[in-house]
Amino acid sequence: MSKIGFIGLGIMGGPMAANLVAAGHEVAGYNRSRAKVDQLVADGGTAASSVAEAVAGAEVVFTMLPDSPDVEAVVLGEDGVLAHAQRGALLVDCSTIRPDTARRVAEAAAQREVRALDAPVSGGEPKAIDGTLSIMVGGAADAFAAAEDVLGAVGATIVHVGPAGAGQTVKAANQLIVAGNIGLLAEALVFLEAHGVDTEAGLDVLGGGLAGSSVLNAKGAKMRDREFGPGFRLELHHKDMGIVQAAAREAGLTAPLGTLVAQLVAASVAQGDGALDHSALLKQITQLNGRS
Amino acid sequence: MSKIGFIGLGIMGGPMAANLVAAGHEVAGYNRSRAKVDQLVADGGTAASSVAEAVAGAEVVFTMLPDSPDVEAVVLGEDGVLAHAQRGALLVDCSTIRPDTARRVAEAAAQREVRALDAPVSGGEPKAIDGTLSIMVGGAADAFAAAEDVLGAVGATIVHVGPAGAGQTVKAANQLIVAGNIGLLAEALVFLEAHGVDTEAGLDVLGGGLAGSSVLNAKGAKMRDREFGPGFRLELHHKDMGIVQAAAREAGLTAPLGTLVAQLVAASVAQGDGALDHSALLKQITQLNGRS
Amino acid sequence: MSKIGFIGLGIMGGPMAANLVAAGHEVAGYNRSRAKVDQLVADGGTAASSVAEAVAGAEVVFTMLPDSPDVEAVVLGEDGVLAHAQRGALLVDCSTIRPDTARRVAEAAAQREVRALDAPVSGGEPKAIDGTLSIMVGGAADAFAAAEDVLGAVGATIVHVGPAGAGQTVKAANQLIVAGNIGLLAEALVFLEAHGVDTEAGLDVLGGGLAGSSVLNAKGAKMRDREFGPGFRLELHHKDMGIVQAAAREAGLTAPLGTLVAQLVAASVAQGDGALDHSALLKQITQLNGRS
Amino acid sequence: MSKIGFIGLGIMGGPMAANLVAAGHEVAGYNRSRAKVDQLVADGGTAASSVAEAVAGAEVVFTMLPDSPDVEAVVLGEDGVLAHAQRGALLVDCSTIRPDTARRVAEAAAQREVRALDAPVSGGEPKAIDGTLSIMVGGAADAFAAAEDVLGAVGATIVHVGPAGAGQTVKAANQLIVAGNIGLLAEALVFLEAHGVDTEAGLDVLGGGLAGSSVLNAKGAKMRDREFGPGFRLELHHKDMGIVQAAAREAGLTAPLGTLVAQLVAASVAQGDGALDHSALLKQITQLNGRS
Repeated sequence: MSKIGFIGLGIMGGPMAANLVAAGHEVAGYNRSRAKVDQLVADGGTAASSVAEAVAGAEVVFTMLPDSPDVEAVVLGEDGVLAHAQRGALLVDCSTIRPDTARRVAEAAAQREVRALDAPVSGGEPKAIDGTLSIMVGGAADAFAAAEDVLGAVGATIVHVGPAGAGQTVKAANQLIVAGNIGLLAEALVFLEAHGVDTEAGLDVLGGGLAGSSVLNAKGAKMRDREFGPGFRLELHHKDMGIVQAAAREAGLTAPLGTLVAQLVAASVAQGDGALDHSALLKQITQLNGRS
Repeated sequence: MSKIGFIGLGIMGGPMAANLVAAGHEVAGYNRSRAKVDQLVADGGTAASSVAEAVAGAEVVFTMLPDSPDVEAVVLGEDGVLAHAQRGALLVDCSTIRPDTARRVAEAAAQREVRALDAPVSGGEPKAIDGTLSIMVGGAADAFAAAEDVLGAVGATIVHVGPAGAGQTVKAANQLIVAGNIGLLAEALVFLEAHGVDTEAGLDVLGGGLAGSSVLNAKGAKMRDREFGPGFRLELHHKDMGIVQAAAREAGLTAPLGTLVAQLVAASVAQGDGALDHSALLKQITQLNGRS
Repeated sequence: MSKIGFIGLGIMGGPMAANLVAAGHEVAGYNRSRAKVDQLVADGGTAASSVAEAVAGAEVVFTMLPDSPDVEAVVLGEDGVLAHAQRGALLVDCSTIRPDTARRVAEAAAQREVRALDAPVSGGEPKAIDGTLSIMVGGAADAFAAAEDVLGAVGATIVHVGPAGAGQTVKAANQLIVAGNIGLLAEALVFLEAHGVDTEAGLDVLGGGLAGSSVLNAKGAKMRDREFGPGFRLELHHKDMGIVQAAAREAGLTAPLGTLVAQLVAASVAQGDGALDHSALLKQITQLNGRS
Repeated sequence: MSKIGFIGLGIMGGPMAANLVAAGHEVAGYNRSRAKVDQLVADGGTAASSVAEAVAGAEVVFTMLPDSPDVEAVVLGEDGVLAHAQRGALLVDCSTIRPDTARRVAEAAAQREVRALDAPVSGGEPKAIDGTLSIMVGGAADAFAAAEDVLGAVGATIVHVGPAGAGQTVKAANQLIVAGNIGLLAEALVFLEAHGVDTEAGLDVLGGGLAGSSVLNAKGAKMRDREFGPGFRLELHHKDMGIVQAAAREAGLTAPLGTLVAQLVAASVAQGDGALDHSALLKQITQLNGRS
């Protein structure tokens, strides 16, 4: 069992920390808003009143933060994780951030003799609660080996995809494909509706063939009914598409479809739909076609 | 058991006719090149030396032809199916053509008291041979009911999706989503390769989450290895994207992603890759990025 | 001076026919609605009560019609221009239609020993009235030479750009560039507005450099003020973008920017702006960005 | 006459500094490579061996640097312009950089009681040599008034477009429109070529109508001849499109055409054409269409 510091106890981080406790680890949690820390204490963890306190003596430090600048501040900042982590500690950053930031974190960690992994997750709140997240991990092979046990408490599919930053790169590719699939399904739905097709039957037959996808399975029926209730917020996907585009530009790459869908996502956010589930991209495709 | 005329015994039509024979139907086949007709005779069918002969006395007429003008010529032409079909016959057109052509065929058929269905299929040659195609059917409910038995000999999933043309509309939506998925996967692969990610592990973890799709399952590994061997030819998908765009324009619709991927497919064909499997769209995305 | 039949006396055709009269030609005009014919008579022309009557004995026949099917009906139809034109007559089609239709017309004309030119115009109603249109002409060199005199009465810039269909091809390229320029200017304006820039000064400096264009000169200030009054209707530009796309597909070409702007134009029409000037594309770019 | 420090004596900065000398100003120049400084001395300026020396006692400081990070380093850096500029000095940054960087520079300058203007230019080397650049200026009105005299020595069109950053925003819009125009012209040219049109005549008639543009005038004939000799390098335009996209994202904006042309520019650079004139975008459109 490991001594773990966990920073960032939000919708995803909270249940992940609880699952680490449940697996027998000793977890000291820190979060800006105190209520989340109290929840972890109720779940059997201990409260830390600062990053320094969470990190002190930890063998493994988890971070689960909203965006690249947050990770830079909390990990690299003056009073941050690396300033307080013990030599030989393992830093597991589960945030979805820019691959180049992940590489910068890994380099800074190495200088302090901390082993860092970028380990973004997919699956959303339900799988965070169930401890069955998919985790795409970038970093050194020995660090991955050392982390597999603790990661097993929060995820079901845990894959080492390459060196530092590779986890974030795969997550970026994931977000590109997912946004694109939502956009394609939205265009197909409007196309079918406008032609007077029975869309329930239509989605059935589409799902059974080469057009089938996890997006269609998970969201097709709800999109048909224009149900865009709580889920993965469009504004977060917008942030992620920004990461995709920055990473593409950094590597001198072009991705025409990914870029166009990023524009559609940006437009949806600009039009005020940022708080809806990302499948609400359909609202914009519908409106673009003068339908409602 | 039904008396069936089958016109168009190519890669798809041939095995479909054979499966109708195997199911106990009496099948008279016609094809422009005689060799295909001989094959049907070998399979237990009979040879027709003209459309008229294939159609004479048939309760059901199947057509499986390359494109809209072919269907217009063979069905509506002077010496075509409708000129010879008996009153009350059922016309099942399995070609992938324009929805408006399908509607025109249905109207012309109605005037001759022939009941027409547009019934494009998906699944490719393997499922044509196995008799497990997905079939999306447009037309009147009673015609669909009358056709279900014969369609059961060639398909596993047979769905009535709406009035005349609706089958073609759903097939068009299918082709839009499939081409888009291939394009997105191609962009993701080049993105991962350029960033030095282990793409085998990367595809695994992508396939397990919300980015998963039938395209990724069926073609991901081969695309990784740049294997674009026999399959569904890009030039056929190019034709189909033309149908998507024409049908969208006819209905006053816009589909930004579908249109962009149609451009990428057109470019692949222009560059000479038309005879490769449609997953060869990856070649173009690779080259667009100055990679090889 | 020539004996001219003029078919299609609308917003463009009316003043063109009047200018031919003013230049001393004998013009017999036909139009479906009689009021337009009366106007030509008031301008000094004569009235024809049918296509046949307008064409009878004419050395030159002008057609100025809305779209490809109209030209097919009026020129190729049973009681159309070619059925009645005398041998050796010159057919000048000023409509904006598909290049392949123009080629078909030229071939049919040749079979009747009529020389055909496709001669679409640009410049709009003001230049039609002033007789200063730009005319892009496709067809045989001798036919062009024979037509230069009469074309001089309606246009200021008259250029022979290639064989039959070439005039329509250049017009299609013209419409692609114009729509694209409107779209780019719309995106730039919204970009400047959102950043709080003085757009009057901004447009001034943009117009003076490499970003300058006829579109910016003619429409920039009005777009800034959201004045989309009478002009070239978006729905006509939508029709023209359909021609561009069909001509591109026919030639196996891809045009990513032209295709995307065609989608934006289609969306504007779908949203009900078809009757506004094509600069109203700005409305959609504005709305796409959640602004108003 | 003013005492001027000029930092960055490259292809653009060199002739600008020489024109300031010619107008009677006292110019101390600094450049990383000494040869450029020697040229300025030959032109009548004086040599500075550091930023500090160039800035010492200057009433006006010009900077003309490649990119945002260069401006950040040279202006905001430890031993940079602001560390050495006298109170009340005027900083005129003619570099093309991110609007937000320009705002950051202006804020930092204000804290040192230095008045800053962002003043990117357009017109290229020829107009830099002639002293007839177009200059789009952002900053306070009084700073603009104070700078008009010195700017008159390097530019012919000098427009105040808004507060700090506005000059860069207009320059970004300029680059969006220019790249878009090149892309549209490239698509039109390939379209005309593929259809066998006389492109020389075609460009003439296009240039005379609503499709006319400065890009067509300046580059049309050379593009037709595939002459992509020295000019504005594609890789610099690629950098600028990065600024456009970052500024759009920062403001929550979408610009579909601008974004697509940015992808085409990125692809051209990825394919190795970065050192050619930006009109070489045509190479890629040509190749995309399988032509050469």
